[in-house]
Amino acid sequence: MRIEILCTGDEVLTGKITNTNYSYMAQKLEDMGLSVVWGTTVGDDRATLLAAFRAAAARADAVIVNGGLGPTVDDLSQEIAAEAAGVGLAFHAGWFATMEAFFAARSRAMPANNRKQAMLPEGAELLDNPVGTACGFALTIGKARFFFTPGVPRELRRMLDDQILPRLLAMAGTPGVIHLKRFHSYGLGESHVDQLLEGIEAMAPDGSVKLGFRAHYPQLETKLLVRAPDAAGIAARLAPVEAEVRRRLGNFILAEDDATLEGTVLAALTRAGATLALVESFTGGQIAARIAPLPGAETVLRRAVVVRDPAELAPAIGADAARLRGSHEDAAGLALIAHVADAARNAARASHALAILVDPDPGPDGIGFGGSILIGIATEAGTACRAARILGGREWLRLGAVEMGLDCLRRHLAELPIDERIDFEKR
Amino acid sequence: MRIEILCTGDEVLTGKITNTNYSYMAQKLEDMGLSVVWGTTVGDDRATLLAAFRAAAARADAVIVNGGLGPTVDDLSQEIAAEAAGVGLAFHAGWFATMEAFFAARSRAMPANNRKQAMLPEGAELLDNPVGTACGFALTIGKARFFFTPGVPRELRRMLDDQILPRLLAMAGTPGVIHLKRFHSYGLGESHVDQLLEGIEAMAPDGSVKLGFRAHYPQLETKLLVRAPDAAGIAARLAPVEAEVRRRLGNFILAEDDATLEGTVLAALTRAGATLALVESFTGGQIAARIAPLPGAETVLRRAVVVRDPAELAPAIGADAARLRGSHEDAAGLALIAHVADAARNAARASHALAILVDPDPGPDGIGFGGSILIGIATEAGTACRAARILGGREWLRLGAVEMGLDCLRRHLAELPIDERIDFEKR
Repeated sequence: MRIEILCTGDEVLTGKITNTNYSYMAQKLEDMGLSVVWGTTVGDDRATLLAAFRAAAARADAVIVNGGLGPTVDDLSQEIAAEAAGVGLAFHAGWFATMEAFFAARSRAMPANNRKQAMLPEGAELLDNPVGTACGFALTIGKARFFFTPGVPRELRRMLDDQILPRLLAMAGTPGVIHLKRFHSYGLGESHVDQLLEGIEAMAPDGSVKLGFRAHYPQLETKLLVRAPDAAGIAARLAPVEAEVRRRLGNFILAEDDATLEGTVLAALTRAGATLALVESFTGGQIAARIAPLPGAETVLRRAVVVRDPAELAPAIGADAARLRGSHEDAAGLALIAHVADAARNAARASHALAILVDPDPGPDGIGFGGSILIGIATEAGTACRAARILGGREWLRLGAVEMGLDCLRRHLAELPIDERIDFEKR
Repeated sequence: MRIEILCTGDEVLTGKITNTNYSYMAQKLEDMGLSVVWGTTVGDDRATLLAAFRAAAARADAVIVNGGLGPTVDDLSQEIAAEAAGVGLAFHAGWFATMEAFFAARSRAMPANNRKQAMLPEGAELLDNPVGTACGFALTIGKARFFFTPGVPRELRRMLDDQILPRLLAMAGTPGVIHLKRFHSYGLGESHVDQLLEGIEAMAPDGSVKLGFRAHYPQLETKLLVRAPDAAGIAARLAPVEAEVRRRLGNFILAEDDATLEGTVLAALTRAGATLALVESFTGGQIAARIAPLPGAETVLRRAVVVRDPAELAPAIGADAARLRGSHEDAAGLALIAHVADAARNAARASHALAILVDPDPGPDGIGFGGSILIGIATEAGTACRAARILGGREWLRLGAVEMGLDCLRRHLAELPIDERIDFEKR
């Protein structure tokens, strides 16, 4: 089945906003085993919209159109869709009543121009929008089934999941149920994981499990797409394969599905009734900024301190100035970071402390630019530390250090070794 | 002139990566007064590429193709371009020599498959790539002039600026020179600025200055696009208009052109030989994370402290516990934040301190969610403080508070009032 995505709107066409709706939709379709073969972007212009609808109608089996369903004069999707299909517009009393209720629930009067949003091409199938006033609709134009969706990301996502994906899967004749299982890891490169998971697809019968990856440094997402006649079949096919993925990737899996590294860390700390002190240098507050916005972080994250000169840690957290001097190499570096983590924990009266000091190389930025990383974790029971070196440029080093710090804390909380060698390390 | 952008590659088509090359190119063309009317995205597939090239060749005057110039078998742009133009491929000895020199300079042997990158359609005009091995080229297909560019963003940007924009401007018959002047502001909404700048275009003769906006909350970018026969003409037309923009937007302009808010703040601190202490709560380290990565920040940013419970400021920066309790309202709030800023400055022995405490409303997130913000700045000369309230959701509040904190510090360093009312405030 040939699927196209057609994005409309001057703001997307002119690059004023980056088209994240496109990548969201395409990725979501791919995750369900549906392939997008063509993407089109046009502005709020009648002639161009009509030409784009006609071209897609002649080429594709299914087309998702995004945008142009709003109440203003430059929202043209319904009108041009009707023209392309050779039908008129009809007033949809049911959707109009829904809109009136939407405004009434918010104690607002509905502006007159919202009536336009209840005008749909004759013969169109309404697609519900439970979170906004722009209903979607499906309509056949030429040889293709068109699905019209709102530009507001939250509304689009809901409609795609609830209304459009089931219809597309039915059109594709996909039997039964599809499920996407995701593993997030840090520390292994894509080709390394691909190699570790060799033969994994063959564990399930009939090609019912498909393996895929999405790399977004520093994390890698490993995906298993499973097809089965029903939910029980999904569970039966997935269970041995996911167990094997967990076994092979082991300690490197930091979270699954919608969970995140920072969320995993916060959940573990919360379960333990713990409080956290952070010390950052080169990472400049980015570890704190990952944890602080999460619900519940306010009771766990007690204090974060960011310094650029390690000597500042003496007044900042009461570290011993004499123990801050000296080499970041080898044993001396590990002793230094252990002391910093311990001092931070004491200063904040926290149960846990994570300290990360990065010593960037001198010289200009570039692919060969790197730095030495010291990570220390302190608890009542003592300290655990590791050292590492990452190359690849200033920003690469910074992102890698943030991730490594959070991942070491995750490992420590899960009683896993914190110093397993990772692929991004240079020694 | 009708310009199209045609992006190629499976990773972009399937949404694995967000297509920022598209928005970069479209925005850059708009900035030069050139309009993109159509965008297409297709994968690394021969038949689809050919169909896409042919459709664009029949529709557009100029087409920028992005991607597909690499050395691997799925890089098909040269080959399909030749097919669409009805010509063969020819070996470009000059570019091959350039590639050999590129590898030699890096002490690496050139792999055999890189030879492919020197095969160009017959009659193509080479477009230089000084930062990579993929040369671009221009070729007429059908009625359109095609410009082929590499997918690596850094290489694309250089080629667009140096090679393609001058050719497109010449094709468009744009006389003389074009210049884009940009102002960045915080605190005024787009419609407000539009109103403040009424009549500004009319100050220049012959429509030679065009006004535009780009809103990316919390900042707004105001753009003046100037056309003139030569550089002297640009300067003459721009000078009175930019002076008037500065006069009307006044203290709200935080930076111009490529400068940033955090860069402006750091530059002012550096000029003053100052050092900075930061205190953050709900903003969770995001102010520190804006300043810390900038070159030179390591000598200015002495210490940042992030806490979630203000009571923690007593042990963290030696604040007086008694003065941390009490209301965030009115005079009491201002006294509290003044004390916090002062204590932070003393604790870090810094010349300047910026403290920002946010008290988010209770209850669930949503468009009506807001919070109260206290901002204090301390120097040797004393403290300056302001209070504000922002509504619009947790993330909106957080972003707004970060920007307001940095902007207050900018204003203070420039000896401007820090408590001018902004459009995002609710009182």
